[in-house]
Amino acid sequence: MHIDQDHWFTEPCEEGGSAFSLRLGPGRKLHEEQTPYQRIAIYDTGYYGNLMVIDGFIMLSARDNFLYHEMMAHPALFTHAAPRRVLIIGGGDCGTLREVLKHPDVELAEQVEIDERVTRLAEQYFPELCTANDDPRARFHFTDGIRWVQEAAAGSYDVIIVDSTDPIGPAEGLFQEPFYRDCLRALGPGGIIVQQSESPLYHQDIIQGMHRAMAGAGFDTVHTLYFPQPVYPSGWWSATLAGKGVDLCSFRREDAAARPFETFYYNEDVHAGALATPPFMARLLSSQAGG
Amino acid sequence: MHIDQDHWFTEPCEEGGSAFSLRLGPGRKLHEEQTPYQRIAIYDTGYYGNLMVIDGFIMLSARDNFLYHEMMAHPALFTHAAPRRVLIIGGGDCGTLREVLKHPDVELAEQVEIDERVTRLAEQYFPELCTANDDPRARFHFTDGIRWVQEAAAGSYDVIIVDSTDPIGPAEGLFQEPFYRDCLRALGPGGIIVQQSESPLYHQDIIQGMHRAMAGAGFDTVHTLYFPQPVYPSGWWSATLAGKGVDLCSFRREDAAARPFETFYYNEDVHAGALATPPFMARLLSSQAGG
Repeated sequence: MHIDQDHWFTEPCEEGGSAFSLRLGPGRKLHEEQTPYQRIAIYDTGYYGNLMVIDGFIMLSARDNFLYHEMMAHPALFTHAAPRRVLIIGGGDCGTLREVLKHPDVELAEQVEIDERVTRLAEQYFPELCTANDDPRARFHFTDGIRWVQEAAAGSYDVIIVDSTDPIGPAEGLFQEPFYRDCLRALGPGGIIVQQSESPLYHQDIIQGMHRAMAGAGFDTVHTLYFPQPVYPSGWWSATLAGKGVDLCSFRREDAAARPFETFYYNEDVHAGALATPPFMARLLSSQAGG
Repeated sequence: MHIDQDHWFTEPCEEGGSAFSLRLGPGRKLHEEQTPYQRIAIYDTGYYGNLMVIDGFIMLSARDNFLYHEMMAHPALFTHAAPRRVLIIGGGDCGTLREVLKHPDVELAEQVEIDERVTRLAEQYFPELCTANDDPRARFHFTDGIRWVQEAAAGSYDVIIVDSTDPIGPAEGLFQEPFYRDCLRALGPGGIIVQQSESPLYHQDIIQGMHRAMAGAGFDTVHTLYFPQPVYPSGWWSATLAGKGVDLCSFRREDAAARPFETFYYNEDVHAGALATPPFMARLLSSQAGG
C-alpha cells in the first residue's frame, strides 16, 4: 500500500514508530499559513471531514473531536462542586469552550489562546465548534496563557482547562511546575485544573512527569482520565486532573446524569469509566509515590 | 511525509478513509505464506515488536495485544458465575487462551482455529502468547468453528469466546444468527458468548447487526464493551457479550479485584468502565429496540 503525499495527509509519530494517514477529499489542502507562532494547515478529508494541523501535528477533525472536547470539559465541571468561572488556556478551536458553555451555571468562560489565527480559522472551517462564541459569558484573550495565569487574581477561577498542543514549542511551559503553582494560586478552594496529557501507550513519561509536577506544585490530588481519540497518536489519549482539596474520583453523578444538554461520548457512566486506572498505569504512577 | 512500502507496513481502512502504518525494524518481513485459508505475514516493527498480518489486516502486535486479549477473556469470565468449560473460536495466536487459563477454576479450554498455521506461527514469533499451550486444560482442534458449535452437545460450555478475523471471508458465518443459535444451544444456563465487534467509530453497522442477530438467536441480554486497541482501525475497539439468563452489567467484582494473576489493562474498575455505553452508541442501539 502506497500512501503518497498528494492524496493523503500523514502524521508520523517517532515515539510509536507509527503513522496515521487520512485520505484527502476533493478540496485537499484548503488553507495553509505561517503565523507568528506556528504553521497552521486545514485539509479536506473524506470520512473525518475538515482537519486542522499545526506544525505537522493533527489538532482535530470534524468527525472525532467530540471525544476530546467532551472529556476536556465535562469531567472537570461535574467534579467541581459549583463551577462558575472557567479559564481555558489554549483551546483556540473553541470546541472545549462550546462544551463548557453547555453548563448553565457557568457565568464566565475566559479563553486565553496565544494565536488568534487558530480561532479565526476555526470560525471559518469548523463553524460547528464556534456556535457558542457569541455567548455573553465567553471572553476571548489572544495572549500568553502562562503570563495570564501569573497575573490572575488569587482564587479567581473554579476550573482551569489546559487545552494545548504537545509539550514542545510554545506549549512547553504549560507542562511545568511553575505554571501549575500559578494555577493553584489562581484557583479558588475546591478548584480543579485539567490538562490533556497525551497517549497512555506512547507518552508515559509525560503523564508521570505531569503527576509529579502537579503534586510538586501543591495540588493534593492528581488523577488521569483515559479515553479514545482516533486522530491522535495510538488512538488512545488521556487528560490529567489536579484538585485543590477535591476528591477527583467522585463527581456530581446525578447532575451529570440529568445534564440539560446533548453529548455524544460523555455521560455519567463514561465519566466513571474514564477514572479507571489500568494496572500498568497504576504501577507506573505509584512507583513515584515516595518521591 | 512519505510512507513507502520498503520501510513501513501500512493497513489502509476504506471505511475510515484512514491508514495506520508501522515502521519496520531491521528484520522487516520475517515470514510470509499462503495457507489454504489466508495469507499470513509476520513483520518486525520497531516500537510494536513482531506484527502478524492476515490478508493485509493487522491481527496483533507484541506491544499492544494485551488490551484485546485481556478484554476478550476476563470480562466474560468474571461475569459468568462459575466458568469451568470455555470454548474459543478462532484465537489461533493463543493470547486469549493464555488469559483464559489464568483463571484457576477453568477446567477445560478448547480452542477451535480453522488454520493451524496461525498457531504454529504464533509459537514461533509470539512465544510469550503461547506460554499456556502445554497446560493440560488446553485442547486444540484445527477445524471449522461453525461446524464445531453445531455438533457440540447442548449445554457443554460456560463461555464461548469468538476471537475471529473481520466479518469477511472465512469468518463471515461467525457474525450471523444461525451461528449464535448454535452457540446458545451449546451454552449451559447462565452461559455467555463474547465476540470482537470492531470499531465503535467505523463499524456501527456491524455492532448493531450483531446485537440484532444475538437477540434474534434467543440471547436475552446483549451488551457491548469498549476499549482501546491502537493497531486496529480507529484505535478504538469493542467486544459484544450475549448472555443466557445473565445480567451482563454486573460481574464478580470482588473476585476480579482479588484475581490471582497479573494483568496490564484489565481490573475491576476497567471492567466496569468498559460497560459504559457512550450516548451516541446508546442512541444507535436503542433505535432497534422495537425491531
